[in-house]
Amino acid sequence: MPVCTFEWRYGSNEMREVFSREHIIGKMVEVEAAIMKGLEAAGLAPEGCWEKTLSTAKYVEPEEVDALERRLGHDVVALVTVVSSKLGEPCGKYVHLGATSYDVVDTAWALVLREALAIVKKKLKTLIELMIELSRKYRDVLMVGRTHGKHALPITFGFKLANYVYELSRSYERIEEVEGRVVQGKIAGAVGTMAGWFGRGLTVEEVALNHLGLKPHAISTQVAPRDGFAELISALAILGSQLDRFALEVRELMRDEIAEVFISSGEVGSSAMPHKRNPSIAERVCGLARVLRGLLITALENIPLMHERDLTNSSAERVLIPHAFLAIDQMLEDAVAIASRLEVDEASMRRNLELTKGNIMSECLTSKLVILGGIPRVEAHEILRKLSRESFEKGLSLKEVFIKSDVGKTLPAEEIDECFDYLKYLGNYRELIERAVSYAKKALGM
Amino acid sequence: MPVCTFEWRYGSNEMREVFSREHIIGKMVEVEAAIMKGLEAAGLAPEGCWEKTLSTAKYVEPEEVDALERRLGHDVVALVTVVSSKLGEPCGKYVHLGATSYDVVDTAWALVLREALAIVKKKLKTLIELMIELSRKYRDVLMVGRTHGKHALPITFGFKLANYVYELSRSYERIEEVEGRVVQGKIAGAVGTMAGWFGRGLTVEEVALNHLGLKPHAISTQVAPRDGFAELISALAILGSQLDRFALEVRELMRDEIAEVFISSGEVGSSAMPHKRNPSIAERVCGLARVLRGLLITALENIPLMHERDLTNSSAERVLIPHAFLAIDQMLEDAVAIASRLEVDEASMRRNLELTKGNIMSECLTSKLVILGGIPRVEAHEILRKLSRESFEKGLSLKEVFIKSDVGKTLPAEEIDECFDYLKYLGNYRELIERAVSYAKKALGM
Amino acid sequence: MPVCTFEWRYGSNEMREVFSREHIIGKMVEVEAAIMKGLEAAGLAPEGCWEKTLSTAKYVEPEEVDALERRLGHDVVALVTVVSSKLGEPCGKYVHLGATSYDVVDTAWALVLREALAIVKKKLKTLIELMIELSRKYRDVLMVGRTHGKHALPITFGFKLANYVYELSRSYERIEEVEGRVVQGKIAGAVGTMAGWFGRGLTVEEVALNHLGLKPHAISTQVAPRDGFAELISALAILGSQLDRFALEVRELMRDEIAEVFISSGEVGSSAMPHKRNPSIAERVCGLARVLRGLLITALENIPLMHERDLTNSSAERVLIPHAFLAIDQMLEDAVAIASRLEVDEASMRRNLELTKGNIMSECLTSKLVILGGIPRVEAHEILRKLSRESFEKGLSLKEVFIKSDVGKTLPAEEIDECFDYLKYLGNYRELIERAVSYAKKALGM
Amino acid sequence: MPVCTFEWRYGSNEMREVFSREHIIGKMVEVEAAIMKGLEAAGLAPEGCWEKTLSTAKYVEPEEVDALERRLGHDVVALVTVVSSKLGEPCGKYVHLGATSYDVVDTAWALVLREALAIVKKKLKTLIELMIELSRKYRDVLMVGRTHGKHALPITFGFKLANYVYELSRSYERIEEVEGRVVQGKIAGAVGTMAGWFGRGLTVEEVALNHLGLKPHAISTQVAPRDGFAELISALAILGSQLDRFALEVRELMRDEIAEVFISSGEVGSSAMPHKRNPSIAERVCGLARVLRGLLITALENIPLMHERDLTNSSAERVLIPHAFLAIDQMLEDAVAIASRLEVDEASMRRNLELTKGNIMSECLTSKLVILGGIPRVEAHEILRKLSRESFEKGLSLKEVFIKSDVGKTLPAEEIDECFDYLKYLGNYRELIERAVSYAKKALGM
Repeated sequence: MPVCTFEWRYGSNEMREVFSREHIIGKMVEVEAAIMKGLEAAGLAPEGCWEKTLSTAKYVEPEEVDALERRLGHDVVALVTVVSSKLGEPCGKYVHLGATSYDVVDTAWALVLREALAIVKKKLKTLIELMIELSRKYRDVLMVGRTHGKHALPITFGFKLANYVYELSRSYERIEEVEGRVVQGKIAGAVGTMAGWFGRGLTVEEVALNHLGLKPHAISTQVAPRDGFAELISALAILGSQLDRFALEVRELMRDEIAEVFISSGEVGSSAMPHKRNPSIAERVCGLARVLRGLLITALENIPLMHERDLTNSSAERVLIPHAFLAIDQMLEDAVAIASRLEVDEASMRRNLELTKGNIMSECLTSKLVILGGIPRVEAHEILRKLSRESFEKGLSLKEVFIKSDVGKTLPAEEIDECFDYLKYLGNYRELIERAVSYAKKALGM
Repeated sequence: MPVCTFEWRYGSNEMREVFSREHIIGKMVEVEAAIMKGLEAAGLAPEGCWEKTLSTAKYVEPEEVDALERRLGHDVVALVTVVSSKLGEPCGKYVHLGATSYDVVDTAWALVLREALAIVKKKLKTLIELMIELSRKYRDVLMVGRTHGKHALPITFGFKLANYVYELSRSYERIEEVEGRVVQGKIAGAVGTMAGWFGRGLTVEEVALNHLGLKPHAISTQVAPRDGFAELISALAILGSQLDRFALEVRELMRDEIAEVFISSGEVGSSAMPHKRNPSIAERVCGLARVLRGLLITALENIPLMHERDLTNSSAERVLIPHAFLAIDQMLEDAVAIASRLEVDEASMRRNLELTKGNIMSECLTSKLVILGGIPRVEAHEILRKLSRESFEKGLSLKEVFIKSDVGKTLPAEEIDECFDYLKYLGNYRELIERAVSYAKKALGM
Repeated sequence: MPVCTFEWRYGSNEMREVFSREHIIGKMVEVEAAIMKGLEAAGLAPEGCWEKTLSTAKYVEPEEVDALERRLGHDVVALVTVVSSKLGEPCGKYVHLGATSYDVVDTAWALVLREALAIVKKKLKTLIELMIELSRKYRDVLMVGRTHGKHALPITFGFKLANYVYELSRSYERIEEVEGRVVQGKIAGAVGTMAGWFGRGLTVEEVALNHLGLKPHAISTQVAPRDGFAELISALAILGSQLDRFALEVRELMRDEIAEVFISSGEVGSSAMPHKRNPSIAERVCGLARVLRGLLITALENIPLMHERDLTNSSAERVLIPHAFLAIDQMLEDAVAIASRLEVDEASMRRNLELTKGNIMSECLTSKLVILGGIPRVEAHEILRKLSRESFEKGLSLKEVFIKSDVGKTLPAEEIDECFDYLKYLGNYRELIERAVSYAKKALGM
Repeated sequence: MPVCTFEWRYGSNEMREVFSREHIIGKMVEVEAAIMKGLEAAGLAPEGCWEKTLSTAKYVEPEEVDALERRLGHDVVALVTVVSSKLGEPCGKYVHLGATSYDVVDTAWALVLREALAIVKKKLKTLIELMIELSRKYRDVLMVGRTHGKHALPITFGFKLANYVYELSRSYERIEEVEGRVVQGKIAGAVGTMAGWFGRGLTVEEVALNHLGLKPHAISTQVAPRDGFAELISALAILGSQLDRFALEVRELMRDEIAEVFISSGEVGSSAMPHKRNPSIAERVCGLARVLRGLLITALENIPLMHERDLTNSSAERVLIPHAFLAIDQMLEDAVAIASRLEVDEASMRRNLELTKGNIMSECLTSKLVILGGIPRVEAHEILRKLSRESFEKGLSLKEVFIKSDVGKTLPAEEIDECFDYLKYLGNYRELIERAVSYAKKALGM
């Protein structure tokens, strides 16, 4: 039975498959085959060997490689030995010729990351589309906007969600950009000079990477530069922190005292308290976001490798790359589940909106006093602050208090009424929602 | 006397100026003026007020604002009060009308960050140009490439440096990309709906931001989304980690046993040991990189703000943004100083290259055995591993040992000789250096 | 005007003083004097020099040292030069004899940290005492306990606060423990062997450190081991995260929908919305906690110094140590202010307790069914889960629904009544509060 | 095949076993049995049930629990259901009575952590003992001490290693201290008041925890306070960073140019270069240290849980706790392997010591000039700095240059000779080594 919770509890099978030992070894054989193709093109290996190399992939058993690694102390040497031996002569002897381990490891990472990022982008796209749908569905559903946890001004639930449409689309952009800097091949041999191919390295690299559909790093040491990996984990950790924000939003709106949204679910809430319906799925998102933020430190520390490389990135990356992807994978699935199962209690939203008895409209009255009453803004702000205090203390609505105040008498009743018509104090929310949607569509190429 | 070392010891005056309290307050007044211009365009304030607002900037004393803040407990309210009072009637009363503090704070951050990023890009460009120059100057200067801290294969010093050209250029790209997602205006009022402008918010925003040369966020809560700030600090922390790598490279090459490069300097090295010439400037770069990596955690945790905003990002950003920029600023200055003052000891490089008595050429012999001798690569690798061990144990050169070995006798002497001609085993280093330079030129728009 | 917000906005003057440049330089002179006393005892310097050295402290101007540092590139060499010159003959020539810079820097850090930790402990003690007082004052004030943000079971406000008494006392313990591992002197010369004192190093060390009231590290390289600093910042970051938890608690309980506690204050809440009373002080605590968590990374990375030391810790510590202390200082002051100004609305607490119509007592009914009704716990849990669902759906109280249910009929009415008497379902809260207080008293030596 | 590298590649089977799903579930059943024992003592369950509960442990299949969890959405409810059902009547119905999930989860964590910490302490003790042995074995083996990577003064290899003896012993102390704050039981029911035990909670807690050999938290919310977990991961991350320092030391001393120590091994070094013998095992330690530093962030962020608990710590801890222990476990095994297999090349050490031609003795000459020559220390330092420069430039030994200099002529020849006798310039290294050993013995209770 496993020790790592990502083996079974968190992360989808789809993502787990991408980072399974078999799959990664398969990708490494694919890279050895691509290098063989390059060797052939450069006249360094007999024709036809690359296809034969590729065909050994399905016969290479991870257990066999691992057993040999334990004996030899080097995973790529073990793999090359197994592949060569399965391949036999005449091709076997050319496997890995002129290459170094990280030609294989880093280029296989690129292949694996391309697949993993495709899953991330697919799920993120699904989430953004859902958010677009929800922000339009709830476009005009009034609720209170909250700042500092306190009632601020009316918004709509659709407006709230449109912010996530925009924020998540920015992550989509970031992921696409980092993809260009991390899904790149590294076929340049030991220390990166391509010396092992006797002057024909550019051909080996070009043919191998074309075959794999990867562009090369312009130059490299023995390994691809690690800034790309750090940027990748950063993009995932930022996305994770945005999902953290969304999950926190839902958790807060699900509080019994607020009760504006729910995640429909048949789950048991508590082993002690039968009445509990907890936002566990949202809390899981917040927890895994912390894992991602931590892993970013590991990724950053991998950048300052010594000279033409040291090996310190290796153990760190074996941990951080699969775990980061399985974490974000679970978080995206959870966020999609939350968004899909979101129930909205519009009555609660309305009730909460009235909770502070009109005080949330103090800004509107302030502005009216300035524009119509000619009172300096700073002064009007102070007047309303005092009236608001009075309203809280007396338990009266702000409207009542305002009308009776000195300044209240100076404003026409219809102007005061207008301030307490929430729908009239939503500014340009519709255009802003549409701007967010347009941004998303452009970012996602929809 | 200050407590923060960035007040005087680290960071340039140029960067310090950008983050000085005066400058930030000046930018905030500039934003208030831009909002006033928007209000005018929207018919919400009398014409001509914006220029008058802007002209108060030079009369707003930080001390005055701070004193008022201490009384009011709110910095932007204090600023608005001071500006309004200086402005007098009729304009004073419209200052900040319909706006919220973070319209001013976040848009002022955008202006400040634009300036700070210009300094970063300028210094990074200088550094990359220096690296290009050095990688060409030392293009053909032979040295040993080191992996795991051990001698691997020959490279040239120019080839080594060209890797930094490429890596730093990737950071330049990243900084340009994040600039588009963080140097953005936020003029949307409380909770982000623009309600305070009675339907004319899009005009206020457009006119204000056009004036400041900023594009708006598509939508926002009461504050700009914080992912942009996290991405920014990430880009700086990645750049910082690359400079850490360069500084570590230099520190290692300066070891007395290696002695391949030096930083020319008249500094005292040690208070105890008069003979010391230490790479202190490079060590400072490594130390400050750690500060940057830590600050990124702070920036990431700022993303999950509650609902339409909470204030937790505020204190964190007051610390992290100036400190991150002053750290990278010092590091870039130090890296430029190191690169400018780099002395290269080619004789040491040559001497070190010979240190392992030809063993670094074992890969070449392996390949020759495969290609010319028809020996399977795995087997050839094992043969050379043993011959290399023999060479170390007997204190003989690999060439001697190889020639006398069974396999050595099977290869023509000129093929063996070729393997020990370092200049012939540098692969495509020249083309790779040029690829790195081309990449940089494209990235930097040179 | 400063760039660092800790120069004026955050942190007390008391703490700022401890980390001011003058104070640190003063401590360094104090250490030089102590070393001189050691030299005298070892017969390496004339008698009476140490007092003269100490007396120069007030004449050493930081500006003078800084000016010399800029010329010499080494801060301790500059200091020694200034002190020697002020001291004149015959003592001047012995200043720093046999010592290394970090004898002075690290031992001065120990002195500074001792003072800074005294401030932290004093403020933490004040906070814990306040929490004890409040947890007793509100010992029996009923409120709902919340898990997952949802109503769970009744607690009292005093019980809630007693948890902070305990948690903060654990931090007090930790700080006392780390103090023993970081407030330690390092007087061992270059590379740590004490060679510069010609066999009399143990005397120099003993006399110098006794004078300063510090115990020595058992052994050291040229510098004190950096694990102590990391542990210190860890203890502060953990304390900071606990204050983060307390501040978050208050922020949540201040929500308009919850309204159970308030921070009394005359602050302006919002520049846009005059009605706002925001928990800004609590939000500041949460923000600064993020700064502390980030700085811990920096402190950890300082541990793996090379060989007998490298200098990379220096720049990092100049930033992280003062900033960490000023951050925790502000946070402690804020937490004390919050606790001192806490207003409790018992009516709100009571109203919220009733919000879920008795559903929070489902656990009690479950247990009664097991104990009195002989129903297996798993089954009883499921029964109550369904009844609770029914109660929510029908808008009825759980009591009503339960009484009418099949199982309800099997329980005596007084047993059911008992379950809905909140005061009877508080378990051992009084003893637990007292356990927390006892723990605190022991930890704080009260 | 697994995705997590800790399933097979890193970490010992011994540690893996402790964190295996079966083992953790077994510990949870053990806690349920202990609670049952408490219930019996409190008269809330029939006698004899606790032993029956415990005996079900071996029949509870993780797969069964997991299958039920998938249906119920709650792992502890699933476990309780399985245990109850296996137990049958009359005991089955009392399982988990009055308890909450985290009574089980947190108390099981305490049991698991006690075992895991025992392994850590055992391996750390082995490592410290090895270091003590080595520091005595190499007590008098001369080598150069290096600061800033540059030659500083002579030390001995034993002196160098004794620093690790001390540093690691400090970690041992820390781990013992944190153990007292994290290996603690939490049996206090939902929200922590013990309400579910109708006033007899203190008995339930006392009996249950006595049985398990754990002391209770003085008070708790629904969960144990999370500062203990953060402190634990901090102690491991600090230890990890110390091992990082040791591994870095070895890597540097293994450089071909330094060649002072080696790790004896039969490993293949490189897939490309047959001659390579790499310090891969040491590099792995450095890589995993980065994983630990990152995980600490996750642990710290888990502290600020909301109110009486939220669930966000759960997913984060499922990841971070096992991974942190498996990482440190591998690192300790690696460090022990490195220390056990350390080969020392005393000739290299001697050769390197001579490398800078006596310049490393400049401090000694400085002091002689002060003490015997009456020259002020600042002046003597400057004289030696210049003579040292001259020595480097002319390629002469410092002794030669010194003797010919003006000041050289003022010192007796035997005093000069003494300075160049390395063995006489090792200060109190022997006493310091013994102080380190004594410290370790006290810390480890040897």
